[in-house]
Amino acid sequence: MNDRLGRQLDFVRELDKLKSVMRKNRLSDLSRLENSAEHSWHVALMALVLAEHAALPLRCEHAVAIALVHDLVEIDAGDTFAYGATGHADKREREERAATRLFGVLPAEQARQFLALWHELEADETPEARFVQALDRLQPVLLHQLTGGVVWREHGVTRSQVMARVAPIRDVLPTLWPVVEQILADAVKSGALRDS
Amino acid sequence: MNDRLGRQLDFVRELDKLKSVMRKNRLSDLSRLENSAEHSWHVALMALVLAEHAALPLRCEHAVAIALVHDLVEIDAGDTFAYGATGHADKREREERAATRLFGVLPAEQARQFLALWHELEADETPEARFVQALDRLQPVLLHQLTGGVVWREHGVTRSQVMARVAPIRDVLPTLWPVVEQILADAVKSGALRDS
Repeated sequence: MNDRLGRQLDFVRELDKLKSVMRKNRLSDLSRLENSAEHSWHVALMALVLAEHAALPLRCEHAVAIALVHDLVEIDAGDTFAYGATGHADKREREERAATRLFGVLPAEQARQFLALWHELEADETPEARFVQALDRLQPVLLHQLTGGVVWREHGVTRSQVMARVAPIRDVLPTLWPVVEQILADAVKSGALRDS
Repeated sequence: MNDRLGRQLDFVRELDKLKSVMRKNRLSDLSRLENSAEHSWHVALMALVLAEHAALPLRCEHAVAIALVHDLVEIDAGDTFAYGATGHADKREREERAATRLFGVLPAEQARQFLALWHELEADETPEARFVQALDRLQPVLLHQLTGGVVWREHGVTRSQVMARVAPIRDVLPTLWPVVEQILADAVKSGALRDS
């Protein structure tokens, strides 16, 4: 086997580990926490389904590629809970180190391509990166709706915390914004989300 | 909210269920069985990484889209174990019914697009469909390698059964074929795979 293929297969084997990185969200049937691999699949498919709602024209297939790799760094760096008190200070540094190590498993020129996808997401400037960032914030809101906001409730999350988190949806997916607002309003009403 | 967006979000919520469809394979750390959502993510990323090995020229982004939806019908039809004795007789009929119900949640023209992706995979004729079918067979072989073939061992799977299952890899991903042959040879040698 040539070295190039060997590195590609090492990377493919490495991917398996993302299935064991647990997020704080629960599946809609409340059976367990969601992991970052299945979350990434969900976001990638949302990109296919919801592309027409993006405010800016975009290359959907490029957004899908970004969605597929968007959480890969968590294999080394772990998932940082959006509403948690810890892990945010050195998140960027941990994830940058993880990206270098993980994409570096690939052949050099492919490593550069994949690293570029992840840096594009982090920079949050291109239409595709902003679209995936918005979907990445929308997906858990839909899960929270299906689970009666149990995770928000457990962690004492406030409406203003969630609003700050989901704000990109307003500009990037304007037709989705009233849906998000309604979900948050319902969650405040039911007591799942603290109104402050 | 308009009806079109409502149907799209219903579909997005429905997707969550694929995370609870369990396959027979174990994760590489043996901690649990793999589910079909994270498997689909793995196959979609493999399409991005391994596209250059396809014997026929293909549109990689189209293969990724097929990979993302390739197991969706299992939400209703369940996963059918490749080496199991049951479930194969009415598999096609169960899955066709599932596809009609599931993609039918989407707006009509989008339902047709997604159904067409799945039918393309099932027909196994286009370069993209054949590529995804081959990756879908390669992915578990790599997991079996990482787990010492524990699932093959448990189910008394034979070398000839696996050979029949992975045969498409030979034509579609010729540079991968020697890798697969070596994994199977090693598995026979270790006793994980019965030599018949």
